[in-house]
Amino acid sequence: MKLIEGGVTSAKGFEAAGVNAGIKYKDRNDMALIYSATPCVAAGVFTKNVVKAAPVLWDRKIIDTCDIMHAVIINAGIANACTGKEGLSYCEQTAKAAAEVFGVRKENIAVASTGVIGMQLPIDRIVGGVYLLKQEKGADYEHGHTSACAIMTTDTKPKEVAIEFEVGGKTVRIGGMCKGSGMIHPDMCTMLCFITTDVAISKKLLAEALQKNVEDTFNMISVDGDTSTNDTVLLMANGEAGNPVIDSKDDDYNTFSEALRRVMEELAKMIAGDGEGCTCLFECKVINARTKENARILAKSVITSNLTKAAIFGHDANWGRILCALGYSGVDFDPEKVDIFFESKAGILKIVGNGVSTCFSEDKASEILSQDYVIALCDMKDGSESAVAWGCDLTYDYVKINGDYRS
Amino acid sequence: MKLIEGGVTSAKGFEAAGVNAGIKYKDRNDMALIYSATPCVAAGVFTKNVVKAAPVLWDRKIIDTCDIMHAVIINAGIANACTGKEGLSYCEQTAKAAAEVFGVRKENIAVASTGVIGMQLPIDRIVGGVYLLKQEKGADYEHGHTSACAIMTTDTKPKEVAIEFEVGGKTVRIGGMCKGSGMIHPDMCTMLCFITTDVAISKKLLAEALQKNVEDTFNMISVDGDTSTNDTVLLMANGEAGNPVIDSKDDDYNTFSEALRRVMEELAKMIAGDGEGCTCLFECKVINARTKENARILAKSVITSNLTKAAIFGHDANWGRILCALGYSGVDFDPEKVDIFFESKAGILKIVGNGVSTCFSEDKASEILSQDYVIALCDMKDGSESAVAWGCDLTYDYVKINGDYRS
Repeated sequence: MKLIEGGVTSAKGFEAAGVNAGIKYKDRNDMALIYSATPCVAAGVFTKNVVKAAPVLWDRKIIDTCDIMHAVIINAGIANACTGKEGLSYCEQTAKAAAEVFGVRKENIAVASTGVIGMQLPIDRIVGGVYLLKQEKGADYEHGHTSACAIMTTDTKPKEVAIEFEVGGKTVRIGGMCKGSGMIHPDMCTMLCFITTDVAISKKLLAEALQKNVEDTFNMISVDGDTSTNDTVLLMANGEAGNPVIDSKDDDYNTFSEALRRVMEELAKMIAGDGEGCTCLFECKVINARTKENARILAKSVITSNLTKAAIFGHDANWGRILCALGYSGVDFDPEKVDIFFESKAGILKIVGNGVSTCFSEDKASEILSQDYVIALCDMKDGSESAVAWGCDLTYDYVKINGDYRS
Repeated sequence: MKLIEGGVTSAKGFEAAGVNAGIKYKDRNDMALIYSATPCVAAGVFTKNVVKAAPVLWDRKIIDTCDIMHAVIINAGIANACTGKEGLSYCEQTAKAAAEVFGVRKENIAVASTGVIGMQLPIDRIVGGVYLLKQEKGADYEHGHTSACAIMTTDTKPKEVAIEFEVGGKTVRIGGMCKGSGMIHPDMCTMLCFITTDVAISKKLLAEALQKNVEDTFNMISVDGDTSTNDTVLLMANGEAGNPVIDSKDDDYNTFSEALRRVMEELAKMIAGDGEGCTCLFECKVINARTKENARILAKSVITSNLTKAAIFGHDANWGRILCALGYSGVDFDPEKVDIFFESKAGILKIVGNGVSTCFSEDKASEILSQDYVIALCDMKDGSESAVAWGCDLTYDYVKINGDYRS
């Protein structure tokens, strides 16, 4: 199992494109396509926000009711959220245009949007974009990369990853791209992720593998605690690797699931590390918690604490804020057992032993916290379960991006 | 029932003081006293954080086990949190010193601390401060005001309020002071509140009135979502108003409880409106929710949303963030029924009708949001329950106060 350079076109049979449809931005691509001529089984996980964007409603419906998927059409600039029945009809019109272009059914086409909410899509331009995407598509890395760039909003870099491994004697690949950070026209941090694989697998197990791995990856990141109306992870598998179809939870399934987890973890960390205005990726690793769920809640409480995030920005070993965030997480534990360490490529330092300060070197701690990937390790000494969550620091630029707008 | 100028010395028989004990700050008072020679019944509510500061443990114990209280000794500068057995022994030593000075038992003395966590108190100076406080105490407004100033940390103003009303033909007063915003040596936003009253009431009903009103006041504010290790609300009643003792939930109890709610609401709003780095008090009023609990959760979700708070700072009518925050609160509702209004002294404007934009005037909205007290009114059209929560905007100065430290 090895990470390779690549993205959504790394798996056999997948093509991609990015084009400028003139939706909202000037001089950049703003629509993307992922396409497989071979029918795919597909799985999706979507925002739990009660307010769901129209594309979320469309995709959930077609994944629930239709066995195959051929393509995803994505636009950046307008989120198609809080747009009522009109917004939902635009999803259908987009899917219908793509269905005509590719000679498939509209229920085989997923859609996704990211950008400002409350505005309606310019549906003519979207439909025009679908035709352009068909012309421009290709199966090489560059085409995947172009699509990854086209879905960015306030992201400072495209986010792609691919992995290669063996299943049933065949080489299988999983590739993915995602976006998430905020928006050029800031509204909320929407997370979109698209993963393609040539593995042969049943739809049921594909959905299970996705759901299981979401818990430890995308559900463990936070930039600002605000759950978007548009969050979407779509996974398509077209079977072109030619492995024996995975239809039971055997070794092949486990291998695939582990590879999928790696891909999703890499993509999730890319989002957290490119959080709006941030200067570093901030990881919290909780070990020796009583239950897995406790470990998850504790780790996530630390990386979502504004005070902790501001301290990380200040390179300040303000451990009281971390202990405090563990304390208000809702999980019960004995504060007088907890050890806390800070770690980065500059070293590792024990900051707290059994709930009180270790009288550590402030200079060394500040050096550790000055790196672009900083870890807080919390040993609860309360069991044997662990979890990892990823966030980023809270900076002036976060306020600037989200506050200096229209005023 | 009327608000009057005053604070913790407004109710009969209460004295207060503030002195410079040299704990941490230079050239300012850092210890405070509230004292009643007449024994008080007392009630308290404390942080739900698993990590509890030593004074919280001490106060909870004496309120649970001892029927009367005479005084509270408060220090600013060091929070006495995460200080182990040594920290707890300092609470007892402080109480013991005060008990000697006032000729009472140490279990009659509450203590409270706010400031940096993880440091030990300079107990000699604290004990010295207790003697000074006894010398300086007085029953007039100025003494109350001096004590309110002495407990400030990064607060930009002291926070006091008093109310006068009739119970059983007697004039009764409730006065309170609190602090909360952050710290000069920033660590976390600790909320401390001390309320005195001369009403005659049973300890049981005093505790009930306090607990009930905390739900709608202090539990409905947030500056940054970080629940402190030190949060404390103490309420002392010495009975000097001479009213028939309130020992059942009759009209007198209801009058007292309503007056107490007013005092607590004013103090809670003072804390939210003086949140670290903020430029305005941001209120969210949710009406016509299905249940009271739903209304509370929805209102609080809006005022704790970083994206919404940054938009308020930018005077940006970014209603999608509010609808989004309602949506991820955990409460179920129909987004296509929701109306949202913005309101301030500059007027009121309907922004959202049935979940979509009303095509409002951006200029008017921005004018409304440029005031120092801004309200978002959310009509859920889902029932008849309502709730109000208070927060503040998220600004560069919040990041500065909490990030630009020691780095």
